[in-house]
Order: sequence, then C-alpha cells, then structure tokens
Amino acid sequence: MGRKPTKIRVVPLGGLKEIGKNMTVIEYRDEMIIVDCGLSFPEDEMLGIDIVIPDITYIEKNKDKIKAIVLTHGHEDHIGALPYVLKKINVPVYGTRLTLGLVEVKLKEHKLTDVHLQRVDAGTTIQLGPFEVEYIKSSHSIPDACAIAIHTSLGVILHTGDFKIDYTPIDEEMIDLQRIAELGKKGILLMLADSTNVERPGTTMSEKNVGITFENIFGGTKSRIIVATFASNVHRIQQIVNAAYKHNRKIVISGRSMVNVSSVAQELGALTVPEGLIIDVNDIDKYDDHEIVIITTGSQGEAMAGLSRMATSDHRKLDIRAGDTVVISATPIPGNEKTVSRVINQLFEKGADVIYESLAEVHVSGHACQEELKLMHRLANPKYFIPVHGEYRHLKQHAKLAENLGMPKENIFTIQNGNVVEITKDYAKLAGNVPSGHVLVDGLGVGDVGNIVLRDRKHLAEDGLMVVVVTLTKENGKIAAGPDIISRGFVYVRESEDLIVEAKQVVKSALDMCEQQNTREWSVLKSSIRDVLKDFLYTKTKRRPMILPVIMEV
Amino acid sequence: MGRKPTKIRVVPLGGLKEIGKNMTVIEYRDEMIIVDCGLSFPEDEMLGIDIVIPDITYIEKNKDKIKAIVLTHGHEDHIGALPYVLKKINVPVYGTRLTLGLVEVKLKEHKLTDVHLQRVDAGTTIQLGPFEVEYIKSSHSIPDACAIAIHTSLGVILHTGDFKIDYTPIDEEMIDLQRIAELGKKGILLMLADSTNVERPGTTMSEKNVGITFENIFGGTKSRIIVATFASNVHRIQQIVNAAYKHNRKIVISGRSMVNVSSVAQELGALTVPEGLIIDVNDIDKYDDHEIVIITTGSQGEAMAGLSRMATSDHRKLDIRAGDTVVISATPIPGNEKTVSRVINQLFEKGADVIYESLAEVHVSGHACQEELKLMHRLANPKYFIPVHGEYRHLKQHAKLAENLGMPKENIFTIQNGNVVEITKDYAKLAGNVPSGHVLVDGLGVGDVGNIVLRDRKHLAEDGLMVVVVTLTKENGKIAAGPDIISRGFVYVRESEDLIVEAKQVVKSALDMCEQQNTREWSVLKSSIRDVLKDFLYTKTKRRPMILPVIMEV
Repeated sequence: MGRKPTKIRVVPLGGLKEIGKNMTVIEYRDEMIIVDCGLSFPEDEMLGIDIVIPDITYIEKNKDKIKAIVLTHGHEDHIGALPYVLKKINVPVYGTRLTLGLVEVKLKEHKLTDVHLQRVDAGTTIQLGPFEVEYIKSSHSIPDACAIAIHTSLGVILHTGDFKIDYTPIDEEMIDLQRIAELGKKGILLMLADSTNVERPGTTMSEKNVGITFENIFGGTKSRIIVATFASNVHRIQQIVNAAYKHNRKIVISGRSMVNVSSVAQELGALTVPEGLIIDVNDIDKYDDHEIVIITTGSQGEAMAGLSRMATSDHRKLDIRAGDTVVISATPIPGNEKTVSRVINQLFEKGADVIYESLAEVHVSGHACQEELKLMHRLANPKYFIPVHGEYRHLKQHAKLAENLGMPKENIFTIQNGNVVEITKDYAKLAGNVPSGHVLVDGLGVGDVGNIVLRDRKHLAEDGLMVVVVTLTKENGKIAAGPDIISRGFVYVRESEDLIVEAKQVVKSALDMCEQQNTREWSVLKSSIRDVLKDFLYTKTKRRPMILPVIMEV
Repeated sequence: MGRKPTKIRVVPLGGLKEIGKNMTVIEYRDEMIIVDCGLSFPEDEMLGIDIVIPDITYIEKNKDKIKAIVLTHGHEDHIGALPYVLKKINVPVYGTRLTLGLVEVKLKEHKLTDVHLQRVDAGTTIQLGPFEVEYIKSSHSIPDACAIAIHTSLGVILHTGDFKIDYTPIDEEMIDLQRIAELGKKGILLMLADSTNVERPGTTMSEKNVGITFENIFGGTKSRIIVATFASNVHRIQQIVNAAYKHNRKIVISGRSMVNVSSVAQELGALTVPEGLIIDVNDIDKYDDHEIVIITTGSQGEAMAGLSRMATSDHRKLDIRAGDTVVISATPIPGNEKTVSRVINQLFEKGADVIYESLAEVHVSGHACQEELKLMHRLANPKYFIPVHGEYRHLKQHAKLAENLGMPKENIFTIQNGNVVEITKDYAKLAGNVPSGHVLVDGLGVGDVGNIVLRDRKHLAEDGLMVVVVTLTKENGKIAAGPDIISRGFVYVRESEDLIVEAKQVVKSALDMCEQQNTREWSVLKSSIRDVLKDFLYTKTKRRPMILPVIMEV
C-alpha cells in the first residue's frame, strides 16, 4: 500500500445547493466516516415520487474504508436515508439518545435488524480509525442535537450540524459554546456550518418564548385546544405538556408519528409527562372542553395527517368543533404555504379560532440567524470554511458573512455535492469530483424512476393521453379492427364525442395513405398516426395530449 | 311586471374564499351592474389548467338586465375573465384610462372587436339605470385604480377595489380619502373592502420607499442592472426609469407583457420616459455595463418569462453575466416561493449579485394593512359590511377587525361566492344563493375539463399508466393477438422487462380463466384484467398506475 495519504478529503454527497439529504464523507489515511445520512422531499416536478436520497455510488465503491456513520441529530433530512444506505453498506451508526431512538423506529419499519447502533453522549469522544469524533452539545428543534468535532493528526474539523443558540433551552442544557471556543482558541482547521437561516438578520428567539404564548393561550380560553406541530419537536411538545398540566387539561396524542416519537422520547427521558396526564382518545368525551388538549401532526397541511383529517371531518375519532382553539405551532416549509393556508381556511370554516404564526408567537425556528452565525464563526475561528445545509443562495450569503468577518475569500469553499475539498497542513483546495446526485424513491422502487418516466408523468399531467389501437391483417396490412380511441385526462369524452369521431377519421385517413404508399413498417405507421393526430388535436383544442398508437396483427 | 323591487341584491360571483377572479353583481330595480371580471390562476391540483374564471350562469340568465361591467383597475384578477364573459354577454365596459388600455390589448388578443369600452375618470360619475356610479381615486400597485361608490335611492354602496393608503404616491394623486370621508359622513349603506393584507399589522410602506432603494442600488454599482417586476406595476417602472435617467443608464425593456404594458402606459400618459432613454435590445452592446438597466418580467420565477430565461441562458438576446446586479422587485405570490428561489439560485450561480426582498426594501405591497383598513372603516363608517378579496382566513379576520371597531356582528356578512345579500332600508340579510364556482380554461377549452379529467391527470401524474391491448376472435372469443402491454410514466421499461413479461402472463391467465367460465362480456373481461394487474403491480412495486384495458375483435 505504501504510505497512507496525509490529506483530509471532505466530500459532501448531499445538503449543498439544496435543502435536505444532508450527508458528508470525511476521509483521512484511507479511512472514512460519514456525517449524517438524510433524505429530502420531492420537488414539485418529481411527480409521484415519495422521497429522495443521495446517490451513494462513491461510498458503495469505498465501503471497506468506512468506519461508521455519525449522526448529528434525528431529523429526517439527517437520518432518513439510513434504511436505504444500510441495505447497501452495513456499517456501525453512532448517535445520541433520541437520535438513535428515532433511527431504531425507522429501521424496524424497514425490517433492518442487524445494524450496529452505538449511543454517544454529548461531551464524549469516540475513536474511529484515525478520527477522534467528539460530540458537542448543541441546540436545535429536536433534543439531543450535537455538533461534531473530528480530531485528526492534521487538525480539527468542526461540523455544526443544524443549530441555533438558545440561551434558555427547555432541557436547561445550553449549546456548549465554551467547548467550541476552547477548540477555536487552540485552532480549528475546517468548519462546516448550517446556512439555513443566513438570510435572516438578528437572532432566533428562544424556544421558551413559545412556552409563554402557550401559557397565555391555555390560560385564556375555556375551549378545547388542538395544537399541531412537528412530531420531532419534543421540546415544543414538552411545553405543551407543561402548559396542559398547569391548566388542568388532559392530553390526547394523535397522529402516527406524534404517537411514535412522543413514546420513544418518553421512554428515553427526553420528554417528561406527569402520570395520567395523557389519556386515550376514546376517553375524550369523559372530560369537559376546558380539560382537553389534543397534540397532533399536520402542521404542514399534509392531507393525510391529523390536523387536515380533523379539518375535513376525515378523522376516525376526532373532529373540529365550533369554538375549538387550534394552534398551528410551526411555520410552513417553503412549498407548503398553500396547503397550510387551505387547512387554516377549513378550520375557520368549522368555526374554530385558529392561531398561527402571523397572529402570535407560536413558533420559533431551529436554525441560527445572522448574529448567531457570526458568534459561531468568531468562537470557532476556523482556518477554512464550507457553508453547508442550504440552497446556493444560502451558501453564497453564508460565504459573504464569513468574508465580512475577515476570512480570506480563498479559504471559503462554496461548493456543491460531489466536490472534493482536499486539506493538508499547508493548503486546502478543490480536488475533483465524485459521483453525486439524487436517487428517487417511488414505492418499492429505488432509482427506477428517472427523467424519462418523470417527463412522461409531466406530459400526462398537463394534457392527458389518447390511445389509438388498430388491428391489421398479417397478409396485406389492411385494417381488421379499429381504429379505436381511448382518452384519459384530456377532455370529457361524453361532451366531446364529435371530436373523437373526427379523430378516428383522421387516423383512418393516415392509415389509408400509408396503405396506398405500400408502407407496412409499424414505426412509420405509428409516427404517421402520432403526427396527424397531434396536429388535429392541437388545432381543435390547443392541447397536446400524449398520443400512444398501438398496432396489433392477426 | 308590477312594481319593481326596492331591494338591493349584492351577489359576489368570485373573489370570496379565494384569491382572484373578483366579480360582484349589484342589482336594484331589476337592473344589474357587475363590478370587475377577473381570472384566477390554477391551484396545484388543477393539472394542466391555464386559467380559472368565474361561473357566470347567473348573469347569462339575466343578461338583459345587465347595464354594464364597471372595472376598478387593470389587474388580471379584475379584468382577466372579460374576453370569456364578453363572448357570452356583450355589455358596455367602463373603466379608467390604463384599465381600458390593458383591456383593449386583451380583447385584441382574443379577436373581440365589437365591445363598447367607455372611459371614466376618477372624480366623475356615470348613470347606469338606477345606479349612479362614482369613480373615486384610489392607490394600488397599478395606476388609475379606483374605488367605486354606487349611489342608489336606497343608499350608497362603496366598493373599495384593491387599495392601500399611500400618502406619497408616485403620480402625486392621493387616494381620495376626503371624498370617502364625505360619503361616510352622509352615510354609506354597505361597504365591500379588500381583505388581502388584513393579517399584517401596521401600514404598507409607500411606493416611494422602493424608489429610494433603487436610487441607492443604481448609484452604488458600476455593473449592469437587471430589474424584474410585475409588468402592470407601472409606478415601479416609473421609478426604475427615474433612477436610470438620473444615473445615466439606458433602458432595455424585455418580456412580452413588459413591452406591451409599458408601451400602452406611455401612450396613455401613465408612464413618462425621457426621449431616447429606452433603447432596442439589439443596441445593448453599444453601451458600457454601467450605462444599462434591463427591465424584465419573471419576478415570480415563471419558467417562460424573461428573468428565468436569462438565468438559464435560454433567452435569445440577453444573458446574465458574472458581476451583473439583479433586483427582484416583487414578493413571491403564495405558491411561487420555490420557483422564485430557484431563479435566485440560478442567478447567483451565474455570478450575479442578487438583491431580493429579504435583503433590501425592493418591494412594497399594493394592499392595505390593518391600520389602513381601520382608517377606511372609520372614514366610510358603513352600516353593513362585506369583506371581499381574500381566502376565508382573510375574510374572517377582516370581519373581526370591523367588529373590534364597534360594528355590530349582525351587520357583517362573511359570505361566499354565490351568496345573495339583500338590503332594504330596514334590514340586510342573506337571501339564498345563485350558481357560482370555477370554470377551468385549458387551451381553447372553457369548462370542458372537470373533476373526472383532473382526477385522471392526477392519477397519471402520480404513477403513470399501463395500456393492455388484446384482440379476440369474433367466433369464439379466443385470443387472436396480444396481450400487448405499453406503459408510460410507470417504470423504465428497459430495466423492467421481466415485470412486463410477467404482467402479460398475469393478463393471459385472467383471460384464460374468463374463457373457461365462458365469459365474453367485455366489461367483465376488462375489469378482470384491471383487477389482477392492479394487485400484481402493487405487490411488485407498491405503485398503482392507471390500467387501461383495450379489447378489439376480429
């Protein structure tokens, strides 16, 4: 083998120039660790796709070098691709208490049983080959979030994970700024830091602020209260629990992921609920309205989640009643604005009083705003910097922020997934690319839906389709049956009978023409049908349905 | 006929519980006027739909009673349905200078030439049967916007149209608060008022603020400047023109609607451009970068508009170059957040400096915030109130705002499209419904795409389709050819050959089974094929493509 290379290579496989599927490979002395393993949700044009995961060609090729996957926290965009990745490379997974709790649930759903999960606590360090991986307490919108300091003989790499700086966190465990400062004082070689909120000036408010709003709402009404929030936001749930307890309300937990996460969090001690406070949904009618709080999913307006189902009377056990107070304790993720608005409208129409972010402080972000990012940069004071977790606009602004703090431009790497940053003790530079991209998951299919399938779905979605079927005789290519036409998603067939009759005639003429010219090549017949029909339909309707000619022979 | 009814009936046909397609019928003494005639843009689930217009069954039935359509301003959501409505009912259309200028362009595109357009100026009144319609100067994000006071012998109806209160408007013509106050002092029977921004506290900033930002940007860079904004925001364009003139920059106007609107506005005197300031796009290279401003469409990230095309190098004449300063002088309309973000990312990647709303004050709204709405309510002081122009959440909040100002709850009508509010001198009440709803326009088709077609498009978009074709013999129903299978938008066929082969076998077995049972009914054969294939494919892929069985007979 010769001497092992004394370069660090940092290779992001996800999370750059996108929101989601965070995943970064760190290499040193021919060994690798992977930080996070997330999924992202499909873009609008990825029709029918369930989730998106990173392209892991590169780590599959290098699977013998991988020591472990280390997780910063338990959000889907950091752990969601694990079941898919672990099916390809079975390596140990490290994470904190709740992170692994959530991973376990996920692996169970995918029937993955032989994964080695290793719990790490904030403030401790694990040795993984040439990497000493130190977990550093952080703050985020999920408990047990950590930054990770990767100590190597070349220097320290600090990966902030997702973070905010909350001086009054719910669990009383502050982000360990002192340790970050200590590391910074000694010298950090490279920092990778969260860019999500870089466009927002000032600082993100403390989670405690939301608690105060809950106090006011819970104390100020005699009605039932329904709170929708992210299932993973356990600190938020803790504050709902606290307010409910204080105001003598029982809690009903609704929605599969809300039930799952809150029970895992309780088992692990990340959520503390007084005995008997949570009641079964079937017992709800034993209590008066002012004795009830329902905690549910659906804060993003997801059609299948608790809140939407209640709002549309599609929930088996719970319904929204006139006079209910509904709190949407979340902000719409970009792209969800309209679905959230629809649910708000439905709730108002049911006669509920709806409290949402534009009306009251019922949500705070989990990410650092500009002033917090500046603090992180000043404390860590890294030599090199890679902005991560963000679209290009965020990475770019984060780079600018670092520059404004005095970091030399050439020490900042505003890169994309697949880029390799090579670091030695003398320099850092871009050193080529590895395969990267997204893999679409649709049902059981992982990667079997690509651009052609999506293009067809888009075409079908826009203008529907027309199937033209004709049976020809083997002997002389004359029409034995048909042409028949079936359309879907194009026009109301009943109201467009004339159009279909005319279309058949157009097809027949085209086939007759081919016959006269003695053309019996199927591909030619099909493209004649497609061409004449396309022109005919566009002239008549200004639409371009997909045209599928089918020829059979008897 | 007997005595004519002495009731006013107010019938909104659009704009309530939705953003867009604003249209309200006002009836008195068996005569009608229509205020505005707008379109809306399709919701996400309206796949392939171009625009949405109101259901006008009610006014078609009553077309002999209609005296006129009176327009408040020239935005699409107030004039966009005119071509469709005027094809059904040819009535005179009244509006201000720029409003009619834009209507003319629109009617020309639709080849409608025999429409009677009648210009009205703010401060004047027209007599339309029993209605005296007074145009009152207003402020909005388009010039020549008016509120409308409809005087009847029963009292005055004030329709605010879209408005904000701008104390320093670009055209120096203040919204005529004095006239509204005067009418209010005498007594307004009913007010219909814009609810768009009711959730925002405070006041909307003056359009002039944006001008100050432009001044700073234009004076602070030597690079080319590209500003994207709404074509109809002529005051915004005026301010770009002013800043360009001051900083010795020539202007290139790009994008069909930007060219159209700015030339109409110039002809009509709503936009003043110094001689020679606007240059042809082909002459752009004759100037240095610091001498150029490009004004373009595409501020909503629309794929086909100027800015997107420049950002993706898809524009015939203009490209974004490293160092360009791009100003996105607009805010994303709900639902467009992601497309706008995508364009921002693309621009940054091209090396442009991009200035958008979260970074600088480059846009202000055209709608009144809470404090402005309160002022309007206090000045107009109407007896009855209908909140309009908004989703239900906005109408609801606007009703609450009016209540908080002391209006009796029973005098506020939070209603929906099609509801009839009947007003006499003694009372106002809900008095039934008329047909209302949306009509989908897809290409040349108006209303020929409905729920079934949309449901099919959605199904096709999610999982694609599989067409199964089989030819049977007439004599004995045996298979003469096939079954053949064609799929689109489902899986990559090349990578799924086995699946297709198996699927054919499954279909063949189903047909054999039918034959054994002597079943020759096509509907039964088809549903057998559909059922077995559905189960087979779901087991194999967890997807549910649309299955289209086609049977032919020879």
